[in-house]
This record gives sequence, structure tokens and C-alpha cells, in this order.
Amino acid sequence: MSNSELESLRKSLDEINYQILELISKRAEIVEKIGAQKQKHGLPRFDPVRESTMLENLVSRNKGPFDDATVRHLFKQIFKASLEMLEEEHKNHLLV
Amino acid sequence: MSNSELESLRKSLDEINYQILELISKRAEIVEKIGAQKQKHGLPRFDPVRESTMLENLVSRNKGPFDDATVRHLFKQIFKASLEMLEEEHKNHLLV
Repeated sequence: MSNSELESLRKSLDEINYQILELISKRAEIVEKIGAQKQKHGLPRFDPVRESTMLENLVSRNKGPFDDATVRHLFKQIFKASLEMLEEEHKNHLLV
Repeated sequence: MSNSELESLRKSLDEINYQILELISKRAEIVEKIGAQKQKHGLPRFDPVRESTMLENLVSRNKGPFDDATVRHLFKQIFKASLEMLEEEHKNHLLV
């Protein structure tokens, strides 16, 4: 079946997937820098108040189509992955 | 405690959070359009082969710092949320 509109939408989706990958990778690099700063100043890696503020700021800017609960869920996954990445890097650093 | 470097990194993180929100929202809008096209052509909403191809394409472009398993996990969450959004919208449409 030929459906050029569907094909064109899928191309847009692929493009946006790669842009999201670039942004979450750039975000993870910033998280690494923040982790290094925190370690330097003896601050804990996880800051629940800061995380909660980030989520509220995101939800307040959400215009859909995802509902607020979904936005919260997706960003919590990103935050969790970032923290796990820092913990893994810290563990590997200790093992070296 | 004053730590201007940490503050500046946090501002970058906030900025990038909003950019990610914009992109995942734009992505969800494209998913809605794809869903409408598929419905029009009697195609199933979920296409496991296409999803698997998208994941492989993303992993092949991953340059870190997240490992491939994390990239896979985060995108699977985005795909799942998109499918659930379509199913919810379809259900609501049937109820009207």
C-alpha cells in the first residue's frame, strides 16, 4: 500500500526522535557537570525539592497533547536514569 | 552557600527540560496524525516492527553519556505513553 502522507509523517517522527536523543544526551552531560560540582561542595547527588520544582515547572508549561501525569512520568524516568548514571559512574570511579 | 557555577548549570538544565517538553509534545502531535492516517487506512495502531526499527536507529546514533539500555528504556516509555494516549483518545471518541 502506498501512503505518502503516512511515510512523510514517519520521517518527521524519525527526525524528532533524533532531536530528542540529542537533547537528553546534552541534558545528561549537564547532569554530570552538576554531579561533579555537588561532589566538590559535599552536596548530596539527589535533591528531592529541586526535582519536585523541576516537575512543577514542566507541568505548568505543558500544553498537551500528553496529559500532566504522562509528562510527570516521562520526566521522572529521565531524572531517575540520570541519577543512576551518576551512581554508576561514582561506583566505577571508586573501583579504579 | 553561593555557588554560581552550580546555579548556571541548573539554569541550563531548566532550559533543556523545556526544550525536551516541547519536542515530546510535538512528537505526540505527529503520533496523533499518524494514528488518524492509520485509522483511515484500517491499519493497526501498534506496529512492533516499526517500533523496533526506531529503537535500533536511535541506539545506533547514541554517543552517550547514557548507555544504550537507558536510551532504549527512555524511548520505550515515550512510545508506550504515545500508544496509551491514542487508545485513550479512541475510547473517548467512541463514548461521544
